[in-house]
Amino acid sequence: MAQAHWGCCPWLVLLCASVWSYPNPGFLGREDVRNCSTNPPHLPVTAVNTTLRLAALRQQIQNWNLSAYIIPDTDAHMSEYISKHDERRAWISGFTGTTGTAVVTLGKAAVWTDSRYWTQAERQMDCNWELHREADAVSVATWILTEIPAGGRVGFDPFLFSVDSWEDYDRTFQDSNRHLVSITDNLVDLAWGSERPPVLSPPIYALPEAFTGSTWREKVSVIRSYMQNHTMAPTGLLLSALDETAWLFNLRSSDIPYNPFFYSYTLLTNCSIRLFVNKSRFSPETLQYLNTNCTGPLCVQLEDYSQVRDSVQAYASGNVKIWIGLSYTTYGLYEVIPKEKLVKSSYSPVMEIKAVKNSKEQALLKASHVRDAVAVIRYLVWLEKNVPLGTVDEFSGAELLNEFRSKEDFSSGPSFETISASGLNAALAHYSPTKELHRKLSSDEMYLVDSGGQYWDGTTDITRTVHWGTPTAFQKEAYTRVLMGSIDLSRLVFPAFTSGRIMDAFARRALWEVGLNYGHGTGHGIGNFLCVHEWPVGFQYNNIAMVKGMFTSIEPGYYQDGEFGIRLEDVALVVEAKTKYPGTYLTFKIVSFVPYDRNLIDVSLLSPEQLQYLNHYYQTIRETVGPELQRRQLLEEFAWLQKHTEPLSARASLSTSLTSMWVASTLAILSWNS
Amino acid sequence: MAQAHWGCCPWLVLLCASVWSYPNPGFLGREDVRNCSTNPPHLPVTAVNTTLRLAALRQQIQNWNLSAYIIPDTDAHMSEYISKHDERRAWISGFTGTTGTAVVTLGKAAVWTDSRYWTQAERQMDCNWELHREADAVSVATWILTEIPAGGRVGFDPFLFSVDSWEDYDRTFQDSNRHLVSITDNLVDLAWGSERPPVLSPPIYALPEAFTGSTWREKVSVIRSYMQNHTMAPTGLLLSALDETAWLFNLRSSDIPYNPFFYSYTLLTNCSIRLFVNKSRFSPETLQYLNTNCTGPLCVQLEDYSQVRDSVQAYASGNVKIWIGLSYTTYGLYEVIPKEKLVKSSYSPVMEIKAVKNSKEQALLKASHVRDAVAVIRYLVWLEKNVPLGTVDEFSGAELLNEFRSKEDFSSGPSFETISASGLNAALAHYSPTKELHRKLSSDEMYLVDSGGQYWDGTTDITRTVHWGTPTAFQKEAYTRVLMGSIDLSRLVFPAFTSGRIMDAFARRALWEVGLNYGHGTGHGIGNFLCVHEWPVGFQYNNIAMVKGMFTSIEPGYYQDGEFGIRLEDVALVVEAKTKYPGTYLTFKIVSFVPYDRNLIDVSLLSPEQLQYLNHYYQTIRETVGPELQRRQLLEEFAWLQKHTEPLSARASLSTSLTSMWVASTLAILSWNS
Repeated sequence: MAQAHWGCCPWLVLLCASVWSYPNPGFLGREDVRNCSTNPPHLPVTAVNTTLRLAALRQQIQNWNLSAYIIPDTDAHMSEYISKHDERRAWISGFTGTTGTAVVTLGKAAVWTDSRYWTQAERQMDCNWELHREADAVSVATWILTEIPAGGRVGFDPFLFSVDSWEDYDRTFQDSNRHLVSITDNLVDLAWGSERPPVLSPPIYALPEAFTGSTWREKVSVIRSYMQNHTMAPTGLLLSALDETAWLFNLRSSDIPYNPFFYSYTLLTNCSIRLFVNKSRFSPETLQYLNTNCTGPLCVQLEDYSQVRDSVQAYASGNVKIWIGLSYTTYGLYEVIPKEKLVKSSYSPVMEIKAVKNSKEQALLKASHVRDAVAVIRYLVWLEKNVPLGTVDEFSGAELLNEFRSKEDFSSGPSFETISASGLNAALAHYSPTKELHRKLSSDEMYLVDSGGQYWDGTTDITRTVHWGTPTAFQKEAYTRVLMGSIDLSRLVFPAFTSGRIMDAFARRALWEVGLNYGHGTGHGIGNFLCVHEWPVGFQYNNIAMVKGMFTSIEPGYYQDGEFGIRLEDVALVVEAKTKYPGTYLTFKIVSFVPYDRNLIDVSLLSPEQLQYLNHYYQTIRETVGPELQRRQLLEEFAWLQKHTEPLSARASLSTSLTSMWVASTLAILSWNS
Repeated sequence: MAQAHWGCCPWLVLLCASVWSYPNPGFLGREDVRNCSTNPPHLPVTAVNTTLRLAALRQQIQNWNLSAYIIPDTDAHMSEYISKHDERRAWISGFTGTTGTAVVTLGKAAVWTDSRYWTQAERQMDCNWELHREADAVSVATWILTEIPAGGRVGFDPFLFSVDSWEDYDRTFQDSNRHLVSITDNLVDLAWGSERPPVLSPPIYALPEAFTGSTWREKVSVIRSYMQNHTMAPTGLLLSALDETAWLFNLRSSDIPYNPFFYSYTLLTNCSIRLFVNKSRFSPETLQYLNTNCTGPLCVQLEDYSQVRDSVQAYASGNVKIWIGLSYTTYGLYEVIPKEKLVKSSYSPVMEIKAVKNSKEQALLKASHVRDAVAVIRYLVWLEKNVPLGTVDEFSGAELLNEFRSKEDFSSGPSFETISASGLNAALAHYSPTKELHRKLSSDEMYLVDSGGQYWDGTTDITRTVHWGTPTAFQKEAYTRVLMGSIDLSRLVFPAFTSGRIMDAFARRALWEVGLNYGHGTGHGIGNFLCVHEWPVGFQYNNIAMVKGMFTSIEPGYYQDGEFGIRLEDVALVVEAKTKYPGTYLTFKIVSFVPYDRNLIDVSLLSPEQLQYLNHYYQTIRETVGPELQRRQLLEEFAWLQKHTEPLSARASLSTSLTSMWVASTLAILSWNS
């Protein structure tokens, strides 16, 4: 899935959005968006009246003697997907897009978001709000500086700021005589009051051993050895990201959408394990599984989730050194640890260990992709039959795909909201249909479906783009060049520990060659029944170096504004490459097993190497998914698969002309002979 | 030239060296290097006795109540090449390599350098010195922390530290109870005393207008408009790098080797121009050229070079904001400017403006490369005749090449020390022959020559690798893959403002494919009679984005330790690419006009696109250099050029096999017919 907001790394996206943002659409005279320049202003039915909400928040702002209050879009764990009760920015502003920061001063209110959400924001916000397009030069912090008086105090909830983002604000405010004020009581929550959705607390369960790569005890030992080998000799490791604790203990739940996590923190020390969580959510068996009845180094001490700040502060008062990953630790915990007791890295060792899957985890993730391919193939076969009838729309299609996935073994729901986009909708960098608002699928236009599933053995994410009629020459060329990019990157051989950033351009070269490009990242890590966007693996500047055993998506695309969108996304395992000369080299091995649309491939554009790679991949699909379809008696799907994985051949002008030459010569000889 | 130490950016190199360093050579039992573990120690004749020098320096260290003193390898302008009187690290340690930092404590003395210099250091240092291989984990700052007591003071000359490097030390020393002490009197100079070579002050001259892209007044106006458009509204710009001032005023001299610069600083404000330099070095005409007799905004006020710190401090006491580029400003000037009066960027606007050549500068730089190609071709022709006679060695070859260059119009000497390396010597990442120590050139081994010239119109830098006999299959493959990398990067079409870092891997892909690689950067900017390594253009992580009008070298290589070395280096201009679909895309256009060695190219490895590109390049060489050779009556060289730029054709197995097929079929038909 080509979301810019990957793996809770918002800073990354903003850059991306500002570089590649779409032109500002002209809203003049449109009914569906607000127009605050008329008197009275025009507000569409979708706009939310925020006057009372703002008044309530401003009351709080005054109570705290602040000049401004910052409202980010995340939760206390820097999660990508957040619960309803954490949707503070959406509640205060009306704007429900997943990415965007709000700031409220006593006189103004403003939202910053990237180009994917500009239209949505203009539809949902009333005229209390300014919209700042992130492509503009003025950052949130710079805007605040100009809006509030000297000596002004800027409030923020330290649990909604990563250390990194706090440092960014702090740097801008330095020497400005404006002051950041950390307030652990969230002021939006105080204004929200009883209307705020409650916190859900579904049971937390242990994954069966068949679905885990190592026991939690083994993982604890590995992490402790990392701590012991660290030159700064940390005595404790603080884990804040939800997938860190879920991974460590092989525990899952469903506190937030799409990701099987539960609210928690872990403080792992040399001699203790402290898990901060709502204890009532465990069954007696799970408590036993966690060894909660003892106090040794492999016993888990449960502490209440709400106690984490106090407990960390108490621990930090001793002769300790606490290791934190800066990207996922909130300022709320960072600020209670004395600086000299911190051991800092961009990512915690858990993030780096988790990124490299062991052989069992690799097999599990691959197995989930085989079953996922069955679901996607069933959907594509069904579409091929039903789209020409004119009965399918983007929303019903997405629902059917979810249904196909739900029938697969170990299914645990979608891994993100399905992007099911026909025609021009696929050119929107972020689009999901709704029951009310969707487009009919048609043989006359391209259709892009980007979807994934959560399974007990793995998380999946795949995008295919198809056309059931006659694509234009440009559509075929663009599609083929996206495919060429995917192939060029997938078959690249590179030295171990090469950073993805350095390889990214191989996915773009075939597009660049003719003046085309795409405005999102090329891929992201993925987990074993964990995050669909599992940081820190990927192809962006702050991703870590590629190591054997990592999984990443590879997903180049092309988007023609107002017309169509193309994306091809596969998940790939990083494997050792066998090179002619000795050396530690790596390459990718695709574990998504769904063929591309032959109708959109212009084989004449492919090099012999690209064609050979593609046919080899198709052979692998046949060998991997074919038997599964047969076993399941999905014979129609099996036949479809055979048809769509027939080896492609170069209808190269060369071979044609050589054949003609041969025929001509032969005829000449024959005639000369006769 | 593939020096790691490009454009005065030492931090970059260290990284590179530590990643790609060669294995630690075994010195045991070797006579030519020191052995401090025997009693008495073994010292080769090349070792320098530093006992008295160290005693003199330690006396100064004690006078200042210090525990340690740091001695970097640069000058007060962060220059890549430094004068004899700035070679402080070489004098105190005996080690003359161009890269390396020394630290002297009361009890120990240590040098850090990268793998290129380990052997040299072991030959030149006596047993007073520890050698720290930079590939090791312990940084200079960390070592100091462990060597000096709590409360210890670490002295340094603030004019030999860039702001960046000072910040690195400062960060490590934070909370350590060790203190950096800035001392403007250089303690090594005090110890060096009268032995220290004097500062040379050759005349400073203005370049004739025919060789400049704009007048200095025009340049001043452009920079002032940059200052006015800056959001922080700087009132002054401080220029510290020598090429900044040389470029700005179109002035040149010869204070340091290879680069035509003179010691100077510039403080350019909205309404004044202050040039810090030794005034006696100007002729009356040059003083007039600089408008030194007036006080308006386009008059140059000369101030003594030694006054710069006081003058900047005095200016900084006013209501001003001073713009500095962090990479080239020394801590000696940085520390006298109050923090709130600084406007900081990585590079000064002069660095960024200078990087983009206007059309006249482009034409000048290209013209110098045409004449440079004549000199290199004359050398290659001469080698082809003389190497088989066994009369040529690396040093005499390099001297002849310098002589050929010196005969070209507007020649002003070599742009760096020629790397002339035969056989295994070419595998050393840094190697230049000396009169005493060199290898004979032979038809039995490869020869690498990396050289460049300074001309009034441009600076050149080119590497060719040749073999006059029968190369091995591996040598041919490696050479061809290096060439493929050069072609793949040169013909890449990429969006405007793409960073070189992102494109670097295209120069490596063909090598990676079979498990080969090279351990240096892929290219660097180059100037118009300025730096041969002109920062900040290039393909490394801290280079700026590519813009039309920049020049960069493209220089992949391959090095087989103990056997041979290959590098192909061309200088390329960044030009607009004409793409099939509209968009602002760029590509490279090579302006080095010397053919590669046909003897080393395995055409069957080249793709049709690579072959087509190569033949087109050869056609360009013919059209560009051919007429120049004819005009100069260099007919033997002209014939050589024609022969070496004959279009190459694919002796592809395909065409061979198709011909056989045709023959076989024809025979079959004939036999069937008969």
